[in-house]
Amino acid sequence: MRLYVLPESYQGEQTLKVKGNDSRYFTRVLRLKEGSKVIGKDQHGALYQMELCSFNRNSCTFSLAPLEKAEEGEGTDTLPAENQELPSIHLFQCTCKGKKNDTIIRMATEIGVSSITLVQSKYCVAQKDKTSLDRYKTITKEAMQQSGSLVNTKIEEVMNLKDVPSFWNNRGPLLFFHQENREGQPDLASFIQEVAPSTPVAILIGSEGGLAEEECKFLENNNGTPILLKTNILRAETAAIYALSVTQMLLQQQK
Amino acid sequence: MRLYVLPESYQGEQTLKVKGNDSRYFTRVLRLKEGSKVIGKDQHGALYQMELCSFNRNSCTFSLAPLEKAEEGEGTDTLPAENQELPSIHLFQCTCKGKKNDTIIRMATEIGVSSITLVQSKYCVAQKDKTSLDRYKTITKEAMQQSGSLVNTKIEEVMNLKDVPSFWNNRGPLLFFHQENREGQPDLASFIQEVAPSTPVAILIGSEGGLAEEECKFLENNNGTPILLKTNILRAETAAIYALSVTQMLLQQQK
Repeated sequence: MRLYVLPESYQGEQTLKVKGNDSRYFTRVLRLKEGSKVIGKDQHGALYQMELCSFNRNSCTFSLAPLEKAEEGEGTDTLPAENQELPSIHLFQCTCKGKKNDTIIRMATEIGVSSITLVQSKYCVAQKDKTSLDRYKTITKEAMQQSGSLVNTKIEEVMNLKDVPSFWNNRGPLLFFHQENREGQPDLASFIQEVAPSTPVAILIGSEGGLAEEECKFLENNNGTPILLKTNILRAETAAIYALSVTQMLLQQQK
Repeated sequence: MRLYVLPESYQGEQTLKVKGNDSRYFTRVLRLKEGSKVIGKDQHGALYQMELCSFNRNSCTFSLAPLEKAEEGEGTDTLPAENQELPSIHLFQCTCKGKKNDTIIRMATEIGVSSITLVQSKYCVAQKDKTSLDRYKTITKEAMQQSGSLVNTKIEEVMNLKDVPSFWNNRGPLLFFHQENREGQPDLASFIQEVAPSTPVAILIGSEGGLAEEECKFLENNNGTPILLKTNILRAETAAIYALSVTQMLLQQQK
């Protein structure tokens, strides 16, 4: 574990009692002892040096002290070489079947997207229930801990495609990736060059069935920009990771 | 199915008898009838208009005629809008655990890499047996058919890391992606700009445990170039798809 994601209830207290799976993970998998150290990250991205004070079969108690940067702290695993700031990318992913959503959420979190919103669109399978949203949050937490991501990837409530533009509220460009040529469609690299630095970027990816023509028109009428990747026709999960990777790299090049 | 991958034994004959799973797929899943058309691709990338002449419970027989381009033919699904030539990228992937290899091979094939070689490195899990190689070929075939990839992604024999440079034989740059800063390490975008157009590029990705220091040195001493992606520490499968996506995009931008 590179970084422990602190519970949402944590408010900067000097001690923290951890129970359940997390406690078992600390004591039985990582085999922490009294005095062992890990780095914690709270819901606002603030970092803490955590030191194990005591533990028993069911729980463990840590003392916590704020850290300025992750490198100053001690943990069980190396942290990213550069504590770099990643560009703010928000993923709007039309809901896919079964485990594909899990794969996309895990990979997108590793890459360091700021938020992930599952979207209901015309060609989506039936809407997921609340249980899935909890599972997605668990996947995100694990991926942040494993990858040592300093971004707090947030899982938003599932929403309908028609609500995406008002939710996004023109915070920055809203790019939707589509596998057909559309009129006036810009090249992604040229488009990103024109984006002002530090502007958040929204990326919308269709489900397995893609986006319907009326959905593309709706997005275009609401400040959405169609993007065609210069590659083969990709399945939804590959398209999502491809789009996130190239967008992140192009935004990094801006700096 | 966007494109049927013809059997390796096919040598341009005017008729082809298909049996087994493929035959069942044509008649029971796609429900082709006499006169139905699909597009076929042979091992050299040549395309054929296929027309179903007759079928029974166990086999189906097609007539075949060569095509210049995929768009001229008729199939059961739309083909990529642009029948573009993708840059030649060769993936050398250190063997990962279980299903991760499958995921990487499927996604890399969709993206259109020219070849995939699984590599044994110091931190790899035990070597896969021959059965896996056959399964990987099946995954690749399915991914090419689904994505309509006009690239014939080849699965090479598993090899040891120390044999990669001689196998690659300086056909073009050999980039290895590593999660730590190394001296003299170039920026990927600047590096790709200097690559002569149409030069094939090799990409080597570590296993879950990454590459050992002596392996990095060995690669550097054999014309390998270390690359650090400006992102979080990614798991092996995410790193592979990230590296392939950004490299493909940067090579496309050259044109």
